[in-house]
Amino acid sequence: MKDKIGIGLIGLGTVGSGVIDILSRNGELIKRRLGVPIEIKKILRKNPGKPLPAGVSGDLMTMDIKDITENPTVDIVVEVMGGLEPAKSYILSAINNGKHVVTANKALLALSGEELYHAASGRNVDLYFEGSVCGGIPIIKAIREGLAANRIETIYGIVNGTSNFILTKMTMEGKEFGEALRDAQSLGYAEADPTFDIEGIDAAHKLSVIVNMAFGTPVDFKEIYTEGISGILPLDISYAKEFNYKIKLLAIAKMKDDSIEVRVHPTMVPNNHLIATVDGIFNAVYITGDAVGPTLFYGRGAGDLPTGSAVVGDIIDVARNILNGGCGRIPPASFKEENRTLLRILSIDEIISLYYFRFTVIDKPGVLSRISGILGAHNISIASVIQKGRKEGGNVPLVMMAHEARERDVKSALKEIDRLPVISEKTVMIRVDEGR
Amino acid sequence: MKDKIGIGLIGLGTVGSGVIDILSRNGELIKRRLGVPIEIKKILRKNPGKPLPAGVSGDLMTMDIKDITENPTVDIVVEVMGGLEPAKSYILSAINNGKHVVTANKALLALSGEELYHAASGRNVDLYFEGSVCGGIPIIKAIREGLAANRIETIYGIVNGTSNFILTKMTMEGKEFGEALRDAQSLGYAEADPTFDIEGIDAAHKLSVIVNMAFGTPVDFKEIYTEGISGILPLDISYAKEFNYKIKLLAIAKMKDDSIEVRVHPTMVPNNHLIATVDGIFNAVYITGDAVGPTLFYGRGAGDLPTGSAVVGDIIDVARNILNGGCGRIPPASFKEENRTLLRILSIDEIISLYYFRFTVIDKPGVLSRISGILGAHNISIASVIQKGRKEGGNVPLVMMAHEARERDVKSALKEIDRLPVISEKTVMIRVDEGR
Repeated sequence: MKDKIGIGLIGLGTVGSGVIDILSRNGELIKRRLGVPIEIKKILRKNPGKPLPAGVSGDLMTMDIKDITENPTVDIVVEVMGGLEPAKSYILSAINNGKHVVTANKALLALSGEELYHAASGRNVDLYFEGSVCGGIPIIKAIREGLAANRIETIYGIVNGTSNFILTKMTMEGKEFGEALRDAQSLGYAEADPTFDIEGIDAAHKLSVIVNMAFGTPVDFKEIYTEGISGILPLDISYAKEFNYKIKLLAIAKMKDDSIEVRVHPTMVPNNHLIATVDGIFNAVYITGDAVGPTLFYGRGAGDLPTGSAVVGDIIDVARNILNGGCGRIPPASFKEENRTLLRILSIDEIISLYYFRFTVIDKPGVLSRISGILGAHNISIASVIQKGRKEGGNVPLVMMAHEARERDVKSALKEIDRLPVISEKTVMIRVDEGR
Repeated sequence: MKDKIGIGLIGLGTVGSGVIDILSRNGELIKRRLGVPIEIKKILRKNPGKPLPAGVSGDLMTMDIKDITENPTVDIVVEVMGGLEPAKSYILSAINNGKHVVTANKALLALSGEELYHAASGRNVDLYFEGSVCGGIPIIKAIREGLAANRIETIYGIVNGTSNFILTKMTMEGKEFGEALRDAQSLGYAEADPTFDIEGIDAAHKLSVIVNMAFGTPVDFKEIYTEGISGILPLDISYAKEFNYKIKLLAIAKMKDDSIEVRVHPTMVPNNHLIATVDGIFNAVYITGDAVGPTLFYGRGAGDLPTGSAVVGDIIDVARNILNGGCGRIPPASFKEENRTLLRILSIDEIISLYYFRFTVIDKPGVLSRISGILGAHNISIASVIQKGRKEGGNVPLVMMAHEARERDVKSALKEIDRLPVISEKTVMIRVDEGR
């Protein structure tokens, strides 16, 4: 039996520092669980000028990836540098050298997951990536293992803390998007260039990883419909409140016979749904399985220690495989490679949803009848209407909630409605989901 | 490589039927994940007269436990009969025959867990028991694996669906305890004899299992302070509302230097705490780890399919170990047997908590000063007071929230206060916890 587990760390940023911190402060505790210590053998870093974290010896540092991927004392390669290249080449090289890999790289998995899963399966090495989705929440483990007896039916995730923080600020304090974004930036919750977070791309990366595991299908990232929160106005948030809804950036996946829905967009969810109570920088994933029913997994989705918790959890998991001979016990993509099926992703036009519309109309008689007539002609029926702040001949908002309709019909109807002379601004449409 | 995994099922009640149902309906899906099919080889049942579930062949039935524990085609023994004996003897016999064991038997684990963990470790067979705590929620997996990098700091669990259903009914509909209990019984959520559920014993069983895993310590079940909900009055629920609290039956564990708090009792928690939003028959466990921060795991805590989901999830997990040679990779008690430490459980008198008091006083001048004087003399300071419905000379409730105090002091103070002539009924005390 091996008397220690050696790891090679690629990257010394936020997550890398978290991993070092946890291994240092909880090293004894982890050894009590695992039976042997985990030792960092080498650390690759891009910037040799940067000061080392406390307690880290300069001897561990290297600028040569081979000191990690070809190092006989390294059992597990831990990739926390992020980005596509050279991370991908490093991981493939590690796998080819028979090393197990732990990574937190969601973008890489979303874009090149299939190649990595295939490589790991082929070499029968472990590829674990709990840290790639929702930081410290053990959601990949729940899907690949805990809920493995279930046919997963629906997934609703708040998987991007930055956008959830911004929407929470807007909802609770009535702030505009730009102001809430600046708050997030000044607190370090948003990057200087926040595009990936606020436009839903980061959420789509994570959803892609989850869907792959949950439904046993490769996912072409480009096919995930992605819409961000930068266009959300306080006005729509306050109308949502009147209908007892909250606006959340949701990552949604649903199994529909032999195809699946996979999409990221701002969504109105009922206030009394558990996912609506997830505020601030927190993440949560609400998963329904045919046997277990609804479940929720909640926690911090980012940060050195929460993501470090997931990465070190993976290291312990793989170490337990190494020590007991169980490597390769979990297929990287959750289903055995030969048993996966390519499921068709429905285009956004094909989905059926509830809808919120905010028309900006010139307030004169007959407007509601014109609009509802066009909606009706496109098989869209109205559930409720709010019209407030009347001013004869001026621009006023006319707000509607619609029953289930097909998105294609909704788009055609709105196109026609927006051409009406009584419509003075482009109509706002937000999808509504009861979360069941 | 084995081409199938054989299981022997002990018990054909609610959970057993759920397991059979899931293996039947999701058998193909599970095979896609696992690589080989799971086959039921034998089923032990007590009552041969009971009709068999649909699709179950009579050939599988046996009345002889040896057909399971000594059956060479059985890899995993699944104990879902419940109760202490003969379940314990059956499990030990299975382990002694080198069989892996999956069980959902919380009472047995709470009372004889140490013996079973030791036996399984000694034979290097797997002992999995996800179904024993919170039905379908993969909480044991989260503690033994997902959060293994963390020092667990606090645990707040709603782990008994029956009592949560009753408290939810009382809170939402203003019902009395007895009426809400009858509702639970008529819906099948409570047994004819509901003692284990309503008196907190079932919750204490589950807490004992969780604490053992989370803190790496054996737990003497008798040392868990346990108080049920049968004494909760609608009056106290409505006062809780006024303070923005909800009353929940919480299973609480906290790490305190070298000792731990482990207790089950009705607790007032803030409305805006996530655990307060867990209503009806649902379960949830709110765990804080030093690295991950707060997390929540939510789902159905009982029922054939939710608990079946956990049991079959365990079967898949163990099967993956069998197929890949990783058996024994997870120590049954989460920590390696030789690395566990016996932590002292603080007696309830030693804990420090916030408190709610409802005094029933004869309404005359000076009462508040007498009571607060005694509290002050016992180091208990008052955070807020509500006194409503004054009737000079009559009995009125005087309600107080106290700052942090030691339980021993609280008991002494209340004993003294209850002897005052102005106190006309025994004072009601409910612990309050901010859940942090």
